[in-house]
Parts: sequence; structure tokens; C-alpha cells
Amino acid sequence: MNYCSQCGSNKIKLRKPKGDIHLRYVCNHCKMIHYSNPNIVTGCLPVLGDKVLLATRKIGPKKDYWNVPAGFMENGETVEEGALREVWEETLAKVDIKDMLTLYSIPHIDQVYIHFWGEMKTPEFGCGIESGEVRLFTEEEIPWDKIAFESSVFTLKSFFSDRKKGQFTTHRACLEL
Amino acid sequence: MNYCSQCGSNKIKLRKPKGDIHLRYVCNHCKMIHYSNPNIVTGCLPVLGDKVLLATRKIGPKKDYWNVPAGFMENGETVEEGALREVWEETLAKVDIKDMLTLYSIPHIDQVYIHFWGEMKTPEFGCGIESGEVRLFTEEEIPWDKIAFESSVFTLKSFFSDRKKGQFTTHRACLEL
Repeated sequence: MNYCSQCGSNKIKLRKPKGDIHLRYVCNHCKMIHYSNPNIVTGCLPVLGDKVLLATRKIGPKKDYWNVPAGFMENGETVEEGALREVWEETLAKVDIKDMLTLYSIPHIDQVYIHFWGEMKTPEFGCGIESGEVRLFTEEEIPWDKIAFESSVFTLKSFFSDRKKGQFTTHRACLEL
Repeated sequence: MNYCSQCGSNKIKLRKPKGDIHLRYVCNHCKMIHYSNPNIVTGCLPVLGDKVLLATRKIGPKKDYWNVPAGFMENGETVEEGALREVWEETLAKVDIKDMLTLYSIPHIDQVYIHFWGEMKTPEFGCGIESGEVRLFTEEEIPWDKIAFESSVFTLKSFFSDRKKGQFTTHRACLEL
């Protein structure tokens, strides 16, 4: 942050405001405190019978690697609405959300992944504008060495493990550097 | 947003960048896209035996109403670390997080509440700098008409209901306007 987005001043300092224990960008001209907080990446694993739907990433990082459909949650939506929107944008599938499967923090990049799983309402899907390829996989077919992110590996393992037990719970983890 | 925080220009327009379906503040001078996304409020219900620990709010909104200890998640921490920090700041209690209890979206103010429950490691607690009063309540003693936010009502009801069943799951809801 170089300039204050409220008054345009360049008198921006990183300091602890009075009564706060965290460093913030503060404008020494208009006194505005500019907060920065973690973002939510929301997604959902679409399930059809004994198969799950994954998509490859069309852009980096991890271009061409497989991923659980997910993306940044937007203002004005619920976490679930964001997950359904991302599933639609990436795979053209429509799902009924069943359970929240994983909560996964990545503190060094200020992100929190929230993944649900859901049943596909119909067998239809396709390749969304953000995806290179979309296909259904049984557990045995999952390309574990070609999964884009650890958060997706965690979600896939949690799903298959819970499905064997016949009971779904929310699993929690974080990515350590 | 009146000025670009990167270049200081006032040529800020709310528009859809190419390839995006959402309105963003875009700087027409340096072309920076300024994203705004929902914030996480993270918290934890401390439990000691058959009692839960609540705190009153020292500031508005809902000043003097009782609340589950919670606050904005900060950069550089996990959701769980943020919850433990907030519990400590508000109630001076130390807890072991057991389960994620609730996921609660408030889309009209771009907030997502994540509440855990946890066992107090010791019976000690006190009044943190942000709280007016802190005390333990049995289920029968909960002042339901004096709970600050619906998210806390939802968490308390979820906790007592799950405790009766002897099994904890993640409950989901959203606040509709």
C-alpha cells in the first residue's frame, strides 16, 4: 500500500494503532486504518455414484494439474453459494451440497480453504472457461501425483475415508511451511 | 475507494475487468484491480464441565449483550489460532479446541463466522480488555434474550443439541435479511 485509498495521501505507515496489537497500514493524514484479512477459497467436490469430478487448471500455479473445483469467495454470497458458483464456472455441473468436508488454513498466504462435498443433480458436466479438462474419477483412478494443491489432496482423502465409514465429518488441517 | 492505493490516482471506476463476471474497483491509470472479499470471524465456545463461558461486549453493536468469544481472523494465523487468540483476549481462558461447530454466512455484510468448541484447560478465566463481564453458564442459565448475535445463538443451540446426542458435527446456516 503506497497511497491512502480514502484521501490519496502518501503518508502511509505500518504501525500498531492505539488499542490494537497488530500492525496495520495507517494514514497519518486522514487517520484511516486499512485492515487486511485472510481470504476464503470455497469449493465443492461433485460426486456421481462412486466417482468424483475434478478439473485441470488452465493457468498457473499448477497449470494442467487436477483440482477440486474452488475459488475465491465473493462479497454478497454465502460460502455454499460461492462453492456452487465455482463448481458451475469450472465444470458446468450442478450439485446438492451435503456436508462441509474440510477446513484448511494456509497462514503464510492468508488463505482459508472451505471444501464441501455434494451429489451431482444430473450426470451432465463440461469444461468451464477456467478449466482445461474435466472428468470423473473412481478412487483408484485419482492421479495423486498430479493433484494441484495439498488442500485438494486433503479433501479427497477425507472424502474417501468418510465414505468408507458411511459418516461425514469436518476435517481440519493447515499447510506448514 | 476514492484513490488507487498503488499509484495514488483518482481514476477509480467500478467495472467488470475483462474475463471477470464481478464488479471491481479498477484504476484506469495503473490498471490495478482492487479486490474486496468476505472476512472471517473466528471464535470458540469454552466449555468447563456442564458450563459454557460467555463474555459481554464492551462496545456496540450490541453493547453489554453476551457473546461467544470471537473476532476477525488476522493474516498469518490459522482459523484455530485466531479462535484461541480471541478467547484469550476476551476471557483470559485457555482451551483445547475439540470440533468445528458452526459455519455461518452473513452475505449482506460480507462476513463468515466459524465457531469451534473447546474444553477449558483450567478453571481460570477473567475479564479481557474487550469484555465487560465474563461468566460460566449452564444451559438453563443462558440469557437467550440477551445474546448479542444470531451466530452465537446458533452456536449455543448447536452445542447443547450435539452434547445431548454425544456427537458433534458442523452445523451450517446463513443470516437472511
